[in-house]
Amino acid sequence: MGASIYPDFPPKTTLEQQDYLLSNIKDWSILNGLAIRPSTSLLSTSTDLSGTLAATAPVTLYPSLFPRACFHEARAIQKAYNELYAAIARDQNWLRQIVQQLIEVDDFIASLWNVHLEVEKEGYVQNLSLGLFRSDYMVHTDPANPDSKPTIKQVEFNTIASSFGGLSTKVSQLHSYLNEIAAYPPTSPPTIAYPSFPANPCIESLSHGFSTAHRAYGPSKSSPSLPLCILFIVTVPESNIFDQLALSTPLQTAYEIPTFRLAFSAILDHTTVSSNKHRILNYSPPHSPEMSYEVSLVYFRAGYSPSHYPSSASWDARLHLERSAAIKCPSILTHLAGSKKIQQELATPNSPHLANFLSRTSSADLIDRIRNTFTAIYPLDDTPEGQHAIRLATSAKDSEGYVLKPQREGGGNNVYGSKIPAFLAGLGDDQQRWRSHILMELIKPPTLRNSILRNGEVQSGEVIGELGVYGVCLWRNGHDEAGGKKNGGDADGEVLENWEAGFLLRTKGSESEEGGVAAGFGAVDSPCLVDV
Amino acid sequence: MGASIYPDFPPKTTLEQQDYLLSNIKDWSILNGLAIRPSTSLLSTSTDLSGTLAATAPVTLYPSLFPRACFHEARAIQKAYNELYAAIARDQNWLRQIVQQLIEVDDFIASLWNVHLEVEKEGYVQNLSLGLFRSDYMVHTDPANPDSKPTIKQVEFNTIASSFGGLSTKVSQLHSYLNEIAAYPPTSPPTIAYPSFPANPCIESLSHGFSTAHRAYGPSKSSPSLPLCILFIVTVPESNIFDQLALSTPLQTAYEIPTFRLAFSAILDHTTVSSNKHRILNYSPPHSPEMSYEVSLVYFRAGYSPSHYPSSASWDARLHLERSAAIKCPSILTHLAGSKKIQQELATPNSPHLANFLSRTSSADLIDRIRNTFTAIYPLDDTPEGQHAIRLATSAKDSEGYVLKPQREGGGNNVYGSKIPAFLAGLGDDQQRWRSHILMELIKPPTLRNSILRNGEVQSGEVIGELGVYGVCLWRNGHDEAGGKKNGGDADGEVLENWEAGFLLRTKGSESEEGGVAAGFGAVDSPCLVDV
Repeated sequence: MGASIYPDFPPKTTLEQQDYLLSNIKDWSILNGLAIRPSTSLLSTSTDLSGTLAATAPVTLYPSLFPRACFHEARAIQKAYNELYAAIARDQNWLRQIVQQLIEVDDFIASLWNVHLEVEKEGYVQNLSLGLFRSDYMVHTDPANPDSKPTIKQVEFNTIASSFGGLSTKVSQLHSYLNEIAAYPPTSPPTIAYPSFPANPCIESLSHGFSTAHRAYGPSKSSPSLPLCILFIVTVPESNIFDQLALSTPLQTAYEIPTFRLAFSAILDHTTVSSNKHRILNYSPPHSPEMSYEVSLVYFRAGYSPSHYPSSASWDARLHLERSAAIKCPSILTHLAGSKKIQQELATPNSPHLANFLSRTSSADLIDRIRNTFTAIYPLDDTPEGQHAIRLATSAKDSEGYVLKPQREGGGNNVYGSKIPAFLAGLGDDQQRWRSHILMELIKPPTLRNSILRNGEVQSGEVIGELGVYGVCLWRNGHDEAGGKKNGGDADGEVLENWEAGFLLRTKGSESEEGGVAAGFGAVDSPCLVDV
Repeated sequence: MGASIYPDFPPKTTLEQQDYLLSNIKDWSILNGLAIRPSTSLLSTSTDLSGTLAATAPVTLYPSLFPRACFHEARAIQKAYNELYAAIARDQNWLRQIVQQLIEVDDFIASLWNVHLEVEKEGYVQNLSLGLFRSDYMVHTDPANPDSKPTIKQVEFNTIASSFGGLSTKVSQLHSYLNEIAAYPPTSPPTIAYPSFPANPCIESLSHGFSTAHRAYGPSKSSPSLPLCILFIVTVPESNIFDQLALSTPLQTAYEIPTFRLAFSAILDHTTVSSNKHRILNYSPPHSPEMSYEVSLVYFRAGYSPSHYPSSASWDARLHLERSAAIKCPSILTHLAGSKKIQQELATPNSPHLANFLSRTSSADLIDRIRNTFTAIYPLDDTPEGQHAIRLATSAKDSEGYVLKPQREGGGNNVYGSKIPAFLAGLGDDQQRWRSHILMELIKPPTLRNSILRNGEVQSGEVIGELGVYGVCLWRNGHDEAGGKKNGGDADGEVLENWEAGFLLRTKGSESEEGGVAAGFGAVDSPCLVDV
């Protein structure tokens, strides 16, 4: 935590003010689907009422103050970030070289890569890819330059299952509503003002992204032609289901696209891939087994974690989808592009990669602005940077300023500061296992206060916010539809659609060291922009 | 239950079809606020999570078949019904004569009347009244004429706290959504078709009613002028809160009218009536006690049941609101106009009252259509009709075809068929206590099947549906603002706004004998119109 740069906020409240605020939050949330399925640990099965219960999603009582310039910068560079990751996902050769450093130490990445190799053997039949990205940042104040302006530093870039877009739009609406009905007590000096609450288009913008990919799939390739559909690949049960439904329901109603939820574990039960050259993905819903749909788009809200692959059948299912003609969001190479190792390669000082990927589409200034969001990230390997990092990470004193992260997606396994040396010692002498991690300089966010409503309890105090910016990107890979092996031929590919798609502010208690709301530590928030 | 007049419906489902239907109902309901606060009897306090839990509202899985002509007739006559009850509420002399027959036997009606008398003494200062009515019907098939067309027969006319308008619009949307996503298995012959699902404008139409009354209140009468607000008078806790919020939230957001919930029991704590001639109703919200609002409209969602008046202070509170300048929805006289005794007076064969009230505004044909909705209703008094009714009600055989209802609003105390003689015997010899009831011929609805999701359980079988049609009516009473005593001078009053405002279909198991969803026996439904 750096020093505070913000005005005093939120205001102190009387008991009656807090009651009014809370009852409005609880009521508005349920009225508008800002909800989760309650944790089974909080309810006994007998009171679950067959899955008819819901609870207010964890939210902050107030929007959190956020530097206006940082907010706008994060959104302004998202299209360039989309270009960057679309280019990485198209550059199979570069990806191979990165992945090969990892496959010995990371089974999960090795298995993902194998899926790609399997499909490559027979050739890809779908050359379109949809990216629904989220770039996550924290506000950073330089401890060495306390008078300098705060900047944004990237925490991670998500290429699969970037969640909370649905709830995020609603939290922005909730906080605006609370402000409109004067549920927020006045501040002195006035801090909360309506123009400070940016509208958040996530739901509309992400749904539009799915529908755009669906249209780009084109007409049915089946003969006779079949109705097209979108599949959301999910885990069951899913406490965060209303976040997903906020995106799928507009697809069904506004866009009139049949959209189904399919458990990752049930993929092989209800889908087939046609044996002809088109490799059409067909879906027959269990409730209507006589119907066959042709799947235009597969959206993964599962499959990002090793725990989703309990058996070899799980990997068969992933391969099954990947080799099909359905557009994937994301493709397996796009999924791999989100590995921490990629982030580290880009952020290595004097690395040429960023410029290589972006120089065709972005100005030098824009590339610099992207680079400015990088914090120092090191491999733990035998390069000079790696050896420097190992010295930092094994030092009780130097490790204080760092976080150790696994290459894998999904969060939940980060090791912070002074705990790093003991953790690495626990890995033993096998330096290969060390290489499945990266070392990242800790970002120093300014001190901030807020209150969180979670599981019916209110907790107030110092918090840390993480801003995510969503991006939608649809691109054509370089290979041809006939099954040619040109995937990764980046010179041939092209970005067809690219837009910034709204934002997410997640806030957690500053004593907590993990950022995911789903992981049980934080809340969905919205920014109140301030000039600092 | 009469014979069935409907096609075979709903269709039989496979387990998978039922699962798909149920999961979509549970998900859509929470996503869209079609919810209730779960009953405390189903959840222990420890799992209540401080009021952050909600549950799917009790709904039918399918829309219920409903005769198209009956549906349109019920809606078509609603404006005339609004005129009728607005005229009754303005005719203080006629009301007095009815009420005087009841005050000895019904403390509650006596107390309501006393509130009117108290205000009348000093004169009314508000000559506008808002009615938000709901006329409830059942489909009737004449057992003597099995080939005749079904008709609608009125169950009751509600003049206070006509609930479920908010949830009703949403159930219509839910059933349409389920149909759109093909969650309903096909029927043979096809019964469910989109044009058969009428759109239900309750939320929009009722909210517009409140805003119209708010505007009609005019500018602040305070000096200096105060911001105006609407008060919803409610019970706390309220499991049906999301029904109410569906109406109040648009007032706050679309109409930008400050709208507050105030517990009936807390009226005197937070409101005052100015001591000047205007008798302005002021409200200071507990969360913002330094603010004072001038109340334009008081909407009662509490106060209709004797249980809401545990002490004389409760009656002081009702008087306090009634004598103020705020428009009441409903006024005390409008509340009284909803008594069953009024319904019985209108429905007495050869009664002149209906024509007297309506001849100025409605055609003879329209008056006949209203009269056709009446079923035989008798007093239990010493008139010839009353003596006839007593003979019916005390006969084991004849009582079969009747229901005994208290004059009071709120439901829950009806006595059916063969239970009537014993119930009356239990009242003892005091014929005065008998007079607090009316005897009503039972309506014979055609056999119908549906399934209800309630408290997480699905129950399927024969059901009975009750169609309510909402009406909004704003009228000017005959008295003057200066405090004259002309209330009830019906010749001077006039209806300013009058519209039909959507509908409600409530459905219960046919073995259940009470109609209120709130009372724990039924579900919110929507009609699927059929030509029978």
